[in-house]
Amino acid sequence: MAPSVDRSNGTIENGILVKEMNSSSLIKNLIPEDEQSPVPGLDDPVRMTQNATTAHILTVKWTIAEGWAAPEIKRYGNIELPPTASVLHYATSCFEGMKAYRGFDNKLRLFRPWLNCARMRDSNERVSLPDFDPEELLKLISTFVATDGPRWLPDAGSTFYVRPAMVGSGSALGINRPGEALFFVFAALFPQSKPGTINPGIRLITSQPSQIRAWPGGFGNTKVGANYGPAMTAQVRARQNECSQTLWLFGDSNIVTEAGASNFFVIWRRSDNKALELVTCSNDTGVILNGITRRSVLEIARERLGIQDAAKQVELEALSVIERPFSIDEVVKAHEEGRIIEAFVSGTAMFISPVSQIIHEDKFIDFPTTQNEAGQKVTVSKYAKTIKLWLEDIIYGREEHPWAYVVDETRVDVAKKA
Amino acid sequence: MAPSVDRSNGTIENGILVKEMNSSSLIKNLIPEDEQSPVPGLDDPVRMTQNATTAHILTVKWTIAEGWAAPEIKRYGNIELPPTASVLHYATSCFEGMKAYRGFDNKLRLFRPWLNCARMRDSNERVSLPDFDPEELLKLISTFVATDGPRWLPDAGSTFYVRPAMVGSGSALGINRPGEALFFVFAALFPQSKPGTINPGIRLITSQPSQIRAWPGGFGNTKVGANYGPAMTAQVRARQNECSQTLWLFGDSNIVTEAGASNFFVIWRRSDNKALELVTCSNDTGVILNGITRRSVLEIARERLGIQDAAKQVELEALSVIERPFSIDEVVKAHEEGRIIEAFVSGTAMFISPVSQIIHEDKFIDFPTTQNEAGQKVTVSKYAKTIKLWLEDIIYGREEHPWAYVVDETRVDVAKKA
Repeated sequence: MAPSVDRSNGTIENGILVKEMNSSSLIKNLIPEDEQSPVPGLDDPVRMTQNATTAHILTVKWTIAEGWAAPEIKRYGNIELPPTASVLHYATSCFEGMKAYRGFDNKLRLFRPWLNCARMRDSNERVSLPDFDPEELLKLISTFVATDGPRWLPDAGSTFYVRPAMVGSGSALGINRPGEALFFVFAALFPQSKPGTINPGIRLITSQPSQIRAWPGGFGNTKVGANYGPAMTAQVRARQNECSQTLWLFGDSNIVTEAGASNFFVIWRRSDNKALELVTCSNDTGVILNGITRRSVLEIARERLGIQDAAKQVELEALSVIERPFSIDEVVKAHEEGRIIEAFVSGTAMFISPVSQIIHEDKFIDFPTTQNEAGQKVTVSKYAKTIKLWLEDIIYGREEHPWAYVVDETRVDVAKKA
Repeated sequence: MAPSVDRSNGTIENGILVKEMNSSSLIKNLIPEDEQSPVPGLDDPVRMTQNATTAHILTVKWTIAEGWAAPEIKRYGNIELPPTASVLHYATSCFEGMKAYRGFDNKLRLFRPWLNCARMRDSNERVSLPDFDPEELLKLISTFVATDGPRWLPDAGSTFYVRPAMVGSGSALGINRPGEALFFVFAALFPQSKPGTINPGIRLITSQPSQIRAWPGGFGNTKVGANYGPAMTAQVRARQNECSQTLWLFGDSNIVTEAGASNFFVIWRRSDNKALELVTCSNDTGVILNGITRRSVLEIARERLGIQDAAKQVELEALSVIERPFSIDEVVKAHEEGRIIEAFVSGTAMFISPVSQIIHEDKFIDFPTTQNEAGQKVTVSKYAKTIKLWLEDIIYGREEHPWAYVVDETRVDVAKKA
């Protein structure tokens, strides 16, 4: 045991110190800037591959006997696993998806990262991966972002994608709780969409009864790897139908749950009293992902668009914000009766993207269109765009808001040289 | 492209040869015997770790552009993956479990390996991993077993565990069908149970409604990794209750589906006509694994224990072999009415193991016991033991049977030196 270890930061079990995850024991083995590869420009085609990453990776090893080892930031590179590693056979894995945003004030921000860290604990628990203090995880993620942010995110209004992940890394052919795990964080450079713009509309195709994404008592409300691999055949089918994503249905009444790996919202007018509603599936049975963008859409819509809100901030008709199971038949009926206003999906990758069409069995549900300033036909997205702009104001620092977490890029004191 | 490639063994797509999996292009880079570690004896405690493996591993790489590369048998060692690898995030993985059996005639056998190879295709398809010719896969597995079998499986009546696995190995942060995959096979040295003996009885605890293993339209009938990680918390609970496995229930009527990662059978007497039944859950809704031992138990029981069979081979009362959904309440009722004869689980790892007790909510369902020859109380397992002995006769070569696949340990002609 290194003499510098803080023994208060762990528990003694069977005479052995089982260490907690501890950001203050971080080791940095950084690559000099002149040895790092060039930063691809915002239009560089390497971003389309979705494989370009920044220079470093953060790793933290865990064993059941000794707990969390000292975290390390080092050169990005391959991970070595024994062929018997738990994750290769038994899907003992989970991840988070976050973005780091370079604000128009040049500050670097994360969006509600506390919620990512809390959700990662839930995901870990669902696949028997080890627990950790979410505040320590956030400090580590933030330090990693502060390490690669200054060089790799130079442009105001741009982002990189931060991927924290946890896998069962130890040899474990028996179907047991993993005895070893690896937490790692890296950042990927994706194509950029400009703040202030909005996707012209994506197409969705409803899932078939032979392909169910999630079920009550399952794990569809966590970000465990097991939710994604089995969903890829439906994704292939969506692409074959020139759709962006699968619109996942559940149960005998075809409840609309998720769109691909994003949450789904529809705005319609009630047939009885003509009031407007923003509706998304409730999460009481665990069949939808507990999305952070979803939650933020609901909260900001309740606050700024809700019918209870006397001091309206926009020239949009107020609406009721409703979480409940609703069926694709309700969407079809509202469409047939001309009551649909708009629909959109929400998520870290898709952000807020309007839906232009849903294919359901032999039906094509076309969402309302309008002409843009250039005279082109585009999907109506008044509410979607308003909500997106509000969220962008927060993440790019135009509005001071408790949801924004400013990354301190000057802080180097948590780092110790190896 | 190497000039030795057989161009008939693949298809030209966009001017590029997309190669099929091809056992005849196998490359062997073997370790000299005197450089291999010693073979652990049958009682060596290293077998308890479930981590001891033989000297070699077989790997085959696949890419969407070029298809299957030449297979290679080489020194067993770590697998390197990019941190962005599909399997680490999205559970694009599946596996098979088989055993190689050293017969009492010293021949090496696999048990119905055709079924493993066919099932692996189904599993691959469910998580968008690439397709292959199952006959080529079997040739590769068989060659691998023939390579390490002679040295690592010296004792008649012993086995090693063969683990074919497939993972999405390429960088793929977007949720898409993997563009690269790795197939690998290795062999693990586990503790041995002696042929002719039977487990004295395992305890099971029923699952809670908050933990559902599989669902119609899900993937519970394939061996994809995604079935296993999320099941481990239930496994931890089982161990805490001093049980071997979870007895998975499904649906509002608590259908009994599987025991851990094994199939479950019960033998009871009908209350109406007193006839004997061997019952296991049917697989029409896809919530149980399509077990090869399960299928073999059903087929051999129908053939040798069925009430239609005039020429009885054993002194056991004939029974009806039935696949249908049945509830835990039916088991409880049969137990209360004294109609239970015995219960057992089946699988490659557990083989045939009698069940001594099921814990369901506040009930303890104790299965009938008897005294063994040493005067000890043991679980009744007349049928389980009879079926186990029949299967052992096949796998250890006491009975010539089409289910046994003899591995040719003298064949080296398929191997080419690199």
